[in-house]
Amino acid sequence: MNIETARDIDKTVLLIERDGPVAILTLNRPQARNSLSEALLIALSEAWTAMAADTSIRAVVLTANGPAFCAGHDLKELTARRSDADGGRAYFHQIMTICSGMMQQIVNLPKPVIAAVQGVATAAGCQLVASCDLAIASEAAKFATPGVDIGLFCSTPMVALSRNVPRKQAMEMLLTGDMVPAQRAADIGLVNRMVPAGQERAEAIALAKQIAAKSAYTLKVGKEAFYRQAEMSLAAAYSYASEVMTENMMARDAEEGICAFIEKRPPTWEDK
Amino acid sequence: MNIETARDIDKTVLLIERDGPVAILTLNRPQARNSLSEALLIALSEAWTAMAADTSIRAVVLTANGPAFCAGHDLKELTARRSDADGGRAYFHQIMTICSGMMQQIVNLPKPVIAAVQGVATAAGCQLVASCDLAIASEAAKFATPGVDIGLFCSTPMVALSRNVPRKQAMEMLLTGDMVPAQRAADIGLVNRMVPAGQERAEAIALAKQIAAKSAYTLKVGKEAFYRQAEMSLAAAYSYASEVMTENMMARDAEEGICAFIEKRPPTWEDK
Amino acid sequence: MNIETARDIDKTVLLIERDGPVAILTLNRPQARNSLSEALLIALSEAWTAMAADTSIRAVVLTANGPAFCAGHDLKELTARRSDADGGRAYFHQIMTICSGMMQQIVNLPKPVIAAVQGVATAAGCQLVASCDLAIASEAAKFATPGVDIGLFCSTPMVALSRNVPRKQAMEMLLTGDMVPAQRAADIGLVNRMVPAGQERAEAIALAKQIAAKSAYTLKVGKEAFYRQAEMSLAAAYSYASEVMTENMMARDAEEGICAFIEKRPPTWEDK
Repeated sequence: MNIETARDIDKTVLLIERDGPVAILTLNRPQARNSLSEALLIALSEAWTAMAADTSIRAVVLTANGPAFCAGHDLKELTARRSDADGGRAYFHQIMTICSGMMQQIVNLPKPVIAAVQGVATAAGCQLVASCDLAIASEAAKFATPGVDIGLFCSTPMVALSRNVPRKQAMEMLLTGDMVPAQRAADIGLVNRMVPAGQERAEAIALAKQIAAKSAYTLKVGKEAFYRQAEMSLAAAYSYASEVMTENMMARDAEEGICAFIEKRPPTWEDK
Repeated sequence: MNIETARDIDKTVLLIERDGPVAILTLNRPQARNSLSEALLIALSEAWTAMAADTSIRAVVLTANGPAFCAGHDLKELTARRSDADGGRAYFHQIMTICSGMMQQIVNLPKPVIAAVQGVATAAGCQLVASCDLAIASEAAKFATPGVDIGLFCSTPMVALSRNVPRKQAMEMLLTGDMVPAQRAADIGLVNRMVPAGQERAEAIALAKQIAAKSAYTLKVGKEAFYRQAEMSLAAAYSYASEVMTENMMARDAEEGICAFIEKRPPTWEDK
Repeated sequence: MNIETARDIDKTVLLIERDGPVAILTLNRPQARNSLSEALLIALSEAWTAMAADTSIRAVVLTANGPAFCAGHDLKELTARRSDADGGRAYFHQIMTICSGMMQQIVNLPKPVIAAVQGVATAAGCQLVASCDLAIASEAAKFATPGVDIGLFCSTPMVALSRNVPRKQAMEMLLTGDMVPAQRAADIGLVNRMVPAGQERAEAIALAKQIAAKSAYTLKVGKEAFYRQAEMSLAAAYSYASEVMTENMMARDAEEGICAFIEKRPPTWEDK
């Protein structure tokens, strides 16, 4: 399968499986290093919309087939549009907007998303990892924002990167384009931890199942509040979070969870 | 002493001692794992008000009695109010507001506060550590935001946590509820360092005394400016901090401190 | 050479050399521990203005002569103005404004600035390191914000410091004034890495040359976007960065860079 046939059979660019309450999304353009073609961007965007609506899904794992996790944008597809009347401007803007919207869908998804990074994640591929709530990296994984090497600074990837990684360490990745090994990525906060190669998928699924066993209502409330309060002043964040806590206390799952804790028994969560 | 009697004798829920210029606050509800009952929240709030006004106090150490540092909110006390006419909503909101206000009193206190964490600090107990300016952890200390396990996401704790710890590492604590050992807490920025078990109190007091020997005026100016500028754009922060520096230069303690430095003698600070 | 003669011969307080596309700025008041006298502040400010305009310069290394990197403000010079009619207030404000402006020139410079820290960097000297995009530290380098020891809290330095270093670690430096060794500075994000003593300058120049070989247009676009998006909400940052990416795609260097990448040949950048 080459890039062109992959584009023809859109349904195959993203595989969706289930393992109990966990949905597993697999980027499946290995011959194109899972680069984010328009078809794959749209498949991802549609998948997040579907995940958001499906109450039987409690957590999502995002992984990839082949040696690369994701090589960023599909440069051949973008370059082909330079022959458009406007030199490609409208198309490039459309792709950047779709991509940025898709990344924000991960942040806004009312359930946790865990990246299982088996190989190299570069440019928008690195952004994909940074956009997930959690990330498990194989010791074979590497990370880079190498747009600077092709004259296209990783400006959208850095939005996600710089919200995970300290300033000088993010700047080093962006200015040099150099590969960052998995352990260093864990040390600077880009991923949660490194595991032996080949275990990243199983570890991510296990982590997803651990989280999926918790109250879906609570995860939804908490994830939303996390990203919202992060953009507020301390006083505004506390005012907002106090309201969230009060509402949360009034919810059925908090009443059940606290009772179960006091009665030293396992809780039973609402199935929604 | 059980929880109920602890609530009857409010004065004992928080012990206040002095060691020279350092005040030592000790959470003292060990049988209730030092959970933040209404009585303890109010005692802490009143203590911060008193500390702010007492010019003889130059720094504060916050520690706890018993095996736990602080287990967060008092769930039995909260649950008892579910029988209120409004299902407890007004009371829960009141407690969250008191607690968030108390945490912000630490940030706004015009003198440094150092946590000495001897045991497990969870939920609002972890928030208490995150809210202090500095924290020394025993190697026996552990940290978690396990609200997700009882259907009550640690939304107010995460306001403080996420201002100390990088995003994915904070999210992992919040989504899993898992315990974080002291060394890991130091690695991710939640505490300043880990010390051998049993030395955390002495280390925190020594650190407090070191800081207490500096100009109280300067500490007050600097701590306030630190948290204020953290919420500003770079340009606004520099504009503000330049004003603060100019005022600071005009103060008696800066004149004395700089003179002493140039004359290679110890400075003598104003006693206020 | 003592401080007074250094001020007379302003041209010598800051040395400017070239190594191909890299400009090397060397703080050259070693007897005064390279403290930021008015003359040195102005020399630095003028240098940044010149660097911004000179298209033959692609990257800048900032280093220093003598055992200290930079000891911060020139306290003798400041103290001498206490005899002004206003006690020095106007002069202090002027110096803080010049210094804060000079630090922001580094951030706003449309090319990368790399600190090569060979010795002790304290107060505004530590701020200088924090303000650079990248920093390489000798294992002999140390960092501190010791203003608190002389009654003058490092309020302007902390603007830069707290945008590099996590909150409790920054606060520890600011409240204690203690020296932070180079490896610890790397661990908390203040510098990118530590190298053997004596190699920091060569390493910084090598890093500068690596970056200088990339498209100057792309570096300019990317650096500006990095610091701008850092102050925005996630949604605003993505909206802004998507525009930046679209413009960047339309630029000649992106077209060339992407073509070269697809054709597996080295790119040729525009010389501007």
